Amino acid sequence: MSNYNQLFDLLLHGSDEQLKVNLPFVYPSDILDILNDDQYSEEDIVSILVRLPNDMIGQLLDEEEQEDKYELLQRVQKNRHSAILEEMSSDELVDMIETIDDQSIVDDLLESLSEENKTEVSQLMSYAPESAGGIMASEFINLYDNKKVKQVLEYLQEIKDDVESHYALYVTDRQNTLKGVVSLSDIATSDFEVSIADIMNPNVISVHYSMDQEDVAKLFDKYNLPVIPVVNDHNQIIGIVTFDDIIEVITQEATADIHQMAGIDADERADSTVKETVQSRLPWLVINLFTAILSSSIVAYFSGTIAQVVALAALMPIVTGMGGNVGSQTYTFTIRSLAIGTIDDGNAMFVFNREMKAALINAAVISSLAFVLGAVIGQDLQIGMIVGASMLLSILFAAALGYLIPSILNRMKIDPAIASSVLVTTMTDSFGFLVFLGLATVFMRYLI
Amino acid sequence: MSNYNQLFDLLLHGSDEQLKVNLPFVYPSDILDILNDDQYSEEDIVSILVRLPNDMIGQLLDEEEQEDKYELLQRVQKNRHSAILEEMSSDELVDMIETIDDQSIVDDLLESLSEENKTEVSQLMSYAPESAGGIMASEFINLYDNKKVKQVLEYLQEIKDDVESHYALYVTDRQNTLKGVVSLSDIATSDFEVSIADIMNPNVISVHYSMDQEDVAKLFDKYNLPVIPVVNDHNQIIGIVTFDDIIEVITQEATADIHQMAGIDADERADSTVKETVQSRLPWLVINLFTAILSSSIVAYFSGTIAQVVALAALMPIVTGMGGNVGSQTYTFTIRSLAIGTIDDGNAMFVFNREMKAALINAAVISSLAFVLGAVIGQDLQIGMIVGASMLLSILFAAALGYLIPSILNRMKIDPAIASSVLVTTMTDSFGFLVFLGLATVFMRYLI
Repeated sequence: MSNYNQLFDLLLHGSDEQLKVNLPFVYPSDILDILNDDQYSEEDIVSILVRLPNDMIGQLLDEEEQEDKYELLQRVQKNRHSAILEEMSSDELVDMIETIDDQSIVDDLLESLSEENKTEVSQLMSYAPESAGGIMASEFINLYDNKKVKQVLEYLQEIKDDVESHYALYVTDRQNTLKGVVSLSDIATSDFEVSIADIMNPNVISVHYSMDQEDVAKLFDKYNLPVIPVVNDHNQIIGIVTFDDIIEVITQEATADIHQMAGIDADERADSTVKETVQSRLPWLVINLFTAILSSSIVAYFSGTIAQVVALAALMPIVTGMGGNVGSQTYTFTIRSLAIGTIDDGNAMFVFNREMKAALINAAVISSLAFVLGAVIGQDLQIGMIVGASMLLSILFAAALGYLIPSILNRMKIDPAIASSVLVTTMTDSFGFLVFLGLATVFMRYLI
Repeated sequence: MSNYNQLFDLLLHGSDEQLKVNLPFVYPSDILDILNDDQYSEEDIVSILVRLPNDMIGQLLDEEEQEDKYELLQRVQKNRHSAILEEMSSDELVDMIETIDDQSIVDDLLESLSEENKTEVSQLMSYAPESAGGIMASEFINLYDNKKVKQVLEYLQEIKDDVESHYALYVTDRQNTLKGVVSLSDIATSDFEVSIADIMNPNVISVHYSMDQEDVAKLFDKYNLPVIPVVNDHNQIIGIVTFDDIIEVITQEATADIHQMAGIDADERADSTVKETVQSRLPWLVINLFTAILSSSIVAYFSGTIAQVVALAALMPIVTGMGGNVGSQTYTFTIRSLAIGTIDDGNAMFVFNREMKAALINAAVISSLAFVLGAVIGQDLQIGMIVGASMLLSILFAAALGYLIPSILNRMKIDPAIASSVLVTTMTDSFGFLVFLGLATVFMRYLI
């Protein structure tokens, strides 16, 4: 329903009958858009929430942004909370609980859950947030392999409401040990009398609950599956991860890498407070200020040379700036390729060779231009030669570090997105100043 | 099958009967891993390909990376090509054709297709590659709303092989006009005698073929759907986009943004050649070299001041470096937030205010530290004050530009990831040099 006013009217003014008939065909996200739209009054919003049934509010909470779920729940009458929480997807419920700072509220929430749900939620909360266990839902459908297709269809008709957005059924033994998988399309396309044992795929792609969410995402990408089951040490199924969780993971992980390469916290958001923004960015600036002292001391060390040939001061930023650019091109490419898995042990040497060859060609072109520039700005052919030569060395140095530093960090299991840029930039800058002013000092007698 | 040697044995040495029984449960991606593994000889690979049936080779081609599809096809006997192409998914076939440079080969390929497939492929090739039309497949299942669930199940059993990895069926009239959608789980959970008209959702989320793939991805994220139909101007369904296409789009778009922010081509790859890498990066370096001349001329203009107080040369890189860091923090955050849609017209002013307040706090802290640093390195309190003051102004200037430039580019429908960094960096650098050396010149008499 793209016409929001029409939807708003239905929600607020539609008869109970109209609401009941139409609601199954309305997308929770569209209702959320209305609830979050400032043009509607809080009074209207609360009236709408009063009219919506618990299962729809559960779906709204499932779909709402993690940080805003609890706020939404608070706008609903308190006596409905317990019933609504039962309607939520277990993983989304855990996400909501994790945003609540006040432990007594968390305890109350947990207390209001059914025994079964409480156990599930406590279990889910024990997994690392960025692991398969941390993103999985506990709701899955399992069955035994002695059933026939028709029996399964009848079973699905019976548990109807729990089947929505399930794409596969898992065949287990009585201990929940995973034995096979049957997709909904297998069920829908097989003759009614066929036995599950005959159509199930015993070769199940599953993940252990401790697997990092990025690796889970790579499996989704590799196998194009809509859902992957999560198992424990005994190969018992304990949950499922679906493609929509993975779309979120991929977006999140890309944002984290982009942020960290620029020196800001992975989880900084458009609605972060001033305080959070300062906390996210200031530490990095302070680190950079102190590393800048290194470059500065190198320049200070050569102040005698600069005093005699002031043109060097004007040319310095060109040499170090270009080293910085090549460094960031190279580490950015390397970090991203490591993250998406296109650089691995198999092609690491190939990529390094290619990087160095490309850097040599780029360095040759840029250094020649820099030579001309240096000779013109410095009004001296020798200055041009010093600019050109130090540019050549800086570019090659920056390219080598830009590849090697993220690769080494990655091998040391340190996220290369976090530390590469400060390391590469500091070293490249220092190297640039050192080689430029060093060469100038050595060849000083030709310059003055 | 995680044990690759076992799979390799099955593929190469298993009896025809073993192969036939097991192949339905093998994932094409696992076979691809073997075909692309250098440890196996080309001879073995070709023997395996000879043994695999056409539909599996079609699936392998569907799953293979775009750039490597045609190479894989060439390893299969030529007389099978035509039959194999019929097994491929139409969108993957188009992707493959688009990588072939030789027009005569493309013509031959198209010529070998069935009439129906040829029309479909030509149609698909006419859409912009990064639009809904460019990523959709033409294979969808449609039905009329007068059918009952049981009839639909029988129909699906009949067309079995074409149902795999379909998650929804589309209800249309005889002109293919989209009237509703029924998910496979609706079919599997509804009583056999229910009519499709009663369970279909008439409120279909669909996209026009011209919609940008990033916007399609946002709809998937919003509605958590596994598949979205693509329609033409007359609301006739012409194809479908599935979640696995979208996982690829999201990864690709993030890579493109990351690359472009660092000044490299969106589509540079780990296996790019030296020539491609140089073409991707050199233009950007040349642009940066020329913008660096601007900073350099500013420094040259103040060479008289530097000649008198050489300590300024050592402090310059600290001031401009910090401006650069703040600028890149701010434009990176802004570009990413614009890309994922978390900054929009509704909160643009809030974010700008927040950015400026945070910048003011960061600037106060960093400038105080810089003041001390300047006073110590320059051995002069006045120099410390000049460093501190110019740092303060540089940081505020960088933060404002870092937010405003991507926002303005975005409003002008120019991809902010491409041009922001060079614009912000050039202006921030120039401003930093100008204010630092300018202040130093004005207060010169106190310095010497």
